[in-house]
Amino acid sequence: MLQERLSPRPALAANPVVAVVGATGAVGAAMLECLNRRRFPSVDVRAIASERSSGKSIPFGGQTLTVTALDEQAFDGVDVALFASSSDISRRYAPIARAAGAVVIDNSSAFRMDEGTPLIVPEVNGDLLDGHDGLVANPNCVAALMVMALAPLEQLSSIERIVAATYQAASGAGAAAMEELELSTRAYLDGDAYSPKVLPHPYAFNLFSHNAGVNQDTGYNGEEEKASAEIRKILDKPNLPIGMTCIRVPVLRAHAVAASLTFAEPVSVDAARAALAAAPGVRLVDDRAANLFPMPVDASGEYDVLVGRLRVDASDPSGRTLALFLSGDQLLKGAALNAVQIAEALLPVPVEVA
Amino acid sequence: MLQERLSPRPALAANPVVAVVGATGAVGAAMLECLNRRRFPSVDVRAIASERSSGKSIPFGGQTLTVTALDEQAFDGVDVALFASSSDISRRYAPIARAAGAVVIDNSSAFRMDEGTPLIVPEVNGDLLDGHDGLVANPNCVAALMVMALAPLEQLSSIERIVAATYQAASGAGAAAMEELELSTRAYLDGDAYSPKVLPHPYAFNLFSHNAGVNQDTGYNGEEEKASAEIRKILDKPNLPIGMTCIRVPVLRAHAVAASLTFAEPVSVDAARAALAAAPGVRLVDDRAANLFPMPVDASGEYDVLVGRLRVDASDPSGRTLALFLSGDQLLKGAALNAVQIAEALLPVPVEVA
Repeated sequence: MLQERLSPRPALAANPVVAVVGATGAVGAAMLECLNRRRFPSVDVRAIASERSSGKSIPFGGQTLTVTALDEQAFDGVDVALFASSSDISRRYAPIARAAGAVVIDNSSAFRMDEGTPLIVPEVNGDLLDGHDGLVANPNCVAALMVMALAPLEQLSSIERIVAATYQAASGAGAAAMEELELSTRAYLDGDAYSPKVLPHPYAFNLFSHNAGVNQDTGYNGEEEKASAEIRKILDKPNLPIGMTCIRVPVLRAHAVAASLTFAEPVSVDAARAALAAAPGVRLVDDRAANLFPMPVDASGEYDVLVGRLRVDASDPSGRTLALFLSGDQLLKGAALNAVQIAEALLPVPVEVA
Repeated sequence: MLQERLSPRPALAANPVVAVVGATGAVGAAMLECLNRRRFPSVDVRAIASERSSGKSIPFGGQTLTVTALDEQAFDGVDVALFASSSDISRRYAPIARAAGAVVIDNSSAFRMDEGTPLIVPEVNGDLLDGHDGLVANPNCVAALMVMALAPLEQLSSIERIVAATYQAASGAGAAAMEELELSTRAYLDGDAYSPKVLPHPYAFNLFSHNAGVNQDTGYNGEEEKASAEIRKILDKPNLPIGMTCIRVPVLRAHAVAASLTFAEPVSVDAARAALAAAPGVRLVDDRAANLFPMPVDASGEYDVLVGRLRVDASDPSGRTLALFLSGDQLLKGAALNAVQIAEALLPVPVEVA
């Protein structure tokens, strides 16, 4: 019977039952917010979390959702389950949800690189959803945000090399990390001591190499490895050389990335701007005269990824490299929004987003 | 007589009279701190600032200095004048100080790229001080910090290309910007509104492309152009291709830089580590197992530039590119310390730093 469930699925029902797993976390809360704000046509939304959050009330538009505990019966009657939980939870419960008939959209890294699992950013490779078999992976936040800028530029000329440095917000480490940033910063301003509890280093007015474990052989950390591998998979360029440096900065919920892209043929700044300006989900913010470029404060709470500072990269005399800077909401396009967009793409009729 | 004064100078007197111009600013205060902490052998230290700070008291070790106003007589009897002021002030008063017999060490960008003016980081090109004619330029903070890592690596193989993204602290925009970061952050935490006064964008938990004006043709901002040109001059590699992205982050006084360096021949991580570990003024902080790398919180208040995250850059399949991450105190090695080190190098006998 499991086998049968795993064969390619039809579209969702027009008004599916939706479950959000990890509904009390930062990404889960943002998923509920996106479902509500975008008027996702569900007959029922279930907020699922760990046993200790069971019974808690969560506002959802005008309604109140009561959190139910994650267990083996949690997915009975569910059509689509958005997982915003750890890889361990996803590995354990995604098969149960699929067996219960739900399509799983998983925000963890558990299945992203599995060969048969589509890793989807709808604007970029949404066409791959046609072949899904009940499990769709939602990418790492850096990968999701970057491909929004990379994919339109790839249409102009093949991208042959990427060098990128990130400026990553606290939200990528969850709501507790966001709180730690605020608490430790207040303590600093008040002259009080603060011992980090969530992240391994002081965060107030500080930055540090991403806290994911470091590959002892290559020196790349897990975040850099994930983002690079997922960018290659989403762009379907398995051999694209990418050198990432992932840094955690004292910003709350929007990431930024400085990237140098080397193309097969020179791409003009004007052509790049035009491609980005026309790309759905991208907002070109590139005003040299006003010195106005993408900033986390402007990206926070926004669906669009802001892209700008387009220029011919002076490090490459051949003129085939462009530099750019982007910023996007880590919780929205970097996680929850993208997952909800995947669910929308599975509906039989397109959603009209207000 | 001016002509005579501009001919090559002998070393300073063993106990020179020192003037600090801009003594009430962030860099000027750090210069006084360095002179005191490093026991610079001056018979007299004069704190000079604008008319409106005149008469103000500044602690200096056990003493108190009384600020005097900058005017045409301010340099009478001064042997070495450290300028920590705007380019306009330096352009106007550096010639007056030189005519009065002082050696000028200028932290502004006024003279840095002038052909006859040595632009000095003592550990890197201090030998060029021999030919000075009374004016020595102190580099841009990013350039000074970066060449500390670049110069030891250049000894292993010629650097052929640099791609760098910076994480720049408030202090580069002065004491008022540091205060604005603290005030605006407290306002954010308290839920109060705050209108930026010093910097053009909100700074609390935000970051933005460097506030220096943007070259409308190239798209590079003034900070990126300065840092790139000065790195080339200090390394004496006038054609070195450099692509910089300079970003202001909500950190108080230490900059960080993520850089990819392409060499003429492959350089191993071990060789790079050994070269950096042996370089004066550099501290290797490169612990993959502990995920401990350079951080502003550790660089602040330190003379050394912290360098780590050495790895073979995955963006370059030829293996000729290394990635690294560094952090250094913007007010110390990025400005005041380097200026005081230049003054020390001009003394007839080496200073023993405690």
